Amino acid sequence: MREDVLRKLLHRNEKKIVLLVIDGLGGLPLEKGGKTELETAHTPNLDALAAEAECGLHMPVGFGITPGSAPGHLALFGYQPTDYPVGRGVVAARGIAFPMRAGDVAARLNFATQDAHGMITDRRAGRIPTEICSRLCDLLGAVRIFGVEVFVRPVRDYRAVVIFRGEGLSDRVKGTDPQTTGVEAYDPKPTSEKGVKTAEVAKEFVRQSLALLKDHSPANAILMRGFAELPDIPSMAERFALHPVAMAVYPDYKGVSRLVGMDVIDGLRDLNDQGEALKQYWDQYDFFFLHHKYADSRGEDGDFQAKVAEIEKVDAFVPQILTHHPDVLIVTGDHSTPAVMKSHSYHPIPFLIHGKNTRPDDVAEFGERPCAKGMWGIIPGAMLIQLALACADKLIKYGA
Amino acid sequence: MREDVLRKLLHRNEKKIVLLVIDGLGGLPLEKGGKTELETAHTPNLDALAAEAECGLHMPVGFGITPGSAPGHLALFGYQPTDYPVGRGVVAARGIAFPMRAGDVAARLNFATQDAHGMITDRRAGRIPTEICSRLCDLLGAVRIFGVEVFVRPVRDYRAVVIFRGEGLSDRVKGTDPQTTGVEAYDPKPTSEKGVKTAEVAKEFVRQSLALLKDHSPANAILMRGFAELPDIPSMAERFALHPVAMAVYPDYKGVSRLVGMDVIDGLRDLNDQGEALKQYWDQYDFFFLHHKYADSRGEDGDFQAKVAEIEKVDAFVPQILTHHPDVLIVTGDHSTPAVMKSHSYHPIPFLIHGKNTRPDDVAEFGERPCAKGMWGIIPGAMLIQLALACADKLIKYGA
Repeated sequence: MREDVLRKLLHRNEKKIVLLVIDGLGGLPLEKGGKTELETAHTPNLDALAAEAECGLHMPVGFGITPGSAPGHLALFGYQPTDYPVGRGVVAARGIAFPMRAGDVAARLNFATQDAHGMITDRRAGRIPTEICSRLCDLLGAVRIFGVEVFVRPVRDYRAVVIFRGEGLSDRVKGTDPQTTGVEAYDPKPTSEKGVKTAEVAKEFVRQSLALLKDHSPANAILMRGFAELPDIPSMAERFALHPVAMAVYPDYKGVSRLVGMDVIDGLRDLNDQGEALKQYWDQYDFFFLHHKYADSRGEDGDFQAKVAEIEKVDAFVPQILTHHPDVLIVTGDHSTPAVMKSHSYHPIPFLIHGKNTRPDDVAEFGERPCAKGMWGIIPGAMLIQLALACADKLIKYGA
Repeated sequence: MREDVLRKLLHRNEKKIVLLVIDGLGGLPLEKGGKTELETAHTPNLDALAAEAECGLHMPVGFGITPGSAPGHLALFGYQPTDYPVGRGVVAARGIAFPMRAGDVAARLNFATQDAHGMITDRRAGRIPTEICSRLCDLLGAVRIFGVEVFVRPVRDYRAVVIFRGEGLSDRVKGTDPQTTGVEAYDPKPTSEKGVKTAEVAKEFVRQSLALLKDHSPANAILMRGFAELPDIPSMAERFALHPVAMAVYPDYKGVSRLVGMDVIDGLRDLNDQGEALKQYWDQYDFFFLHHKYADSRGEDGDFQAKVAEIEKVDAFVPQILTHHPDVLIVTGDHSTPAVMKSHSYHPIPFLIHGKNTRPDDVAEFGERPCAKGMWGIIPGAMLIQLALACADKLIKYGA
């Protein structure tokens, strides 16, 4: 839908939309003729919703395209991901609420271990705890680069983020992570003329960091990837007249939420906390993004049964949402993560939209095959938000 | 999918994709409540594939649009046909592997019969054999036009192609074929200012040709149509990182294949030859286009049962493909040719995509109605290639 056209139809009201995202929800059968993870899971609450809801499948990016987590969520928030490329560094920086400015360049930083010859022996520095990561980030605060401000901030475990601030910086730099061990980290290299200065800055940052970390084994090295500038994304308030809030456990999902202007509730550790937050903030917002990570994690592990169990946990959580009587409830995933593939995949993701005037189809079970026969067939992921707005009476009639 | 975005996701590997095209596959029932040609055909092999595959219908050009053969195939090769208009002359010229250059203008040329008053009495010159056609083309090699090189080449039976090479030529010329008998052939007329010179050239070509053919009845006249310049189409190698080969019997399909940079195996006469070629070249390519023409031909004849029989022939051929264990197999058509209509039609065409990680839907029979309930619903034809690439692990993840 053309942005300018949609904007004129927006109508604010008090109605509340809940978007419940089961990360990596879509799946595949373990064997031919079998059921997917979602079809296997015992999900009485989701099935009951599906029976009253409009169902279908969605593609976050496009036909055959496997979405990363950020694009998958951007689509669910109503943004065609190919129109808004978002780099990993920015997701990380915004995930810890670092106040990035236009022109800043952020990169994900992993602490790592190298041997006496500079060969990387552990890309995760023995998975040091966040506390040590935090102290090492402070230590790297001593790096000084002429004309550039440097911020190093801890994220979680061995993960951190570095932000460079100064004139003429750019995201046109390739990361230094060799993605394997037994080799040296790469030098930061510009991918175009625009990246030359930033690559120099990154190189100097690495040089000083290695000196500062010399005696801090296993965290005596760093790897950088996902150099990224702050993208120019209109907020959900601007674009959809919503007042949205994110309730997610993992930093990256908070990061994507902040990129579209959502408020973020920090300190949530699990579905229990998320349920409490929903209760506490119910009156203050009209769009609630609830995120459950572990279906994706267990899919990545290749653990079919454990993914089934995570989906069942979310099913058991659904009644807590319903006690608040949301006007619209969407349940879906940001991408598929079939346990048999141990990775994200291109397969479309089941969704249901439940609300007062949703037109029921014949789907009585929330699953890939039932949803393929649902009302909507396969739609672009970014269209879900329009269906949610419509269902919540937040869109007026187009034309006379 | 945006071309520049897709290009960054391409990942070359050894996996092999087979595209089996049953020309004019889609159909209609002979009478209300009846079955289509494909639904009538006994197709145990295609049905077994469908049961394990992702199924759907595709539209090569757009809603309600009847595709010609060239656009139908362009879509299957991954090119939205409205972005790449291709004229008949070019398809014919490339079908015989004539090395057209940018700026050349090609037109299909039919030998025809005219009476003493210049009235066309047979638009196909009594269907003269290719051998005579070939000699007449040599004869027309004597045509001399100032500043323009002229090439006349035989295609098949009464069909030939003429290519003009020179400065300032253009495809903005209307053909001379009146599409009926008992009238004169048209003069070549420019359709815009740019076509004036080429229309003059074509007119002079006709004048000299008629003189040369005067005593060669029934081939004493020519008709020209489909004036066309070489389109600027990125190759499948460039656009999809594929190394593709075409195994088709008819020249036009070889022509479209060459336009997208496919290698073409010449000299194939039937499915047997195509099966042999598949075996011989299996190790040398990663994309195999197999084309079977006669379902369309029998549809054009209005012969429902004969079309059914052609579909059954292809079904019996399928096991030959499967002996090579392709990683991905797509079976579909380039357009519908319902026998009851005796022509191409706008109806969407059934497809199946079979591969290791395809998500099965509930389709257990390859047919129009079963496929309409398949996983994919109705999709643009040009998207099939993205699904094939995804299914063959030839696309990496999009975004962080």
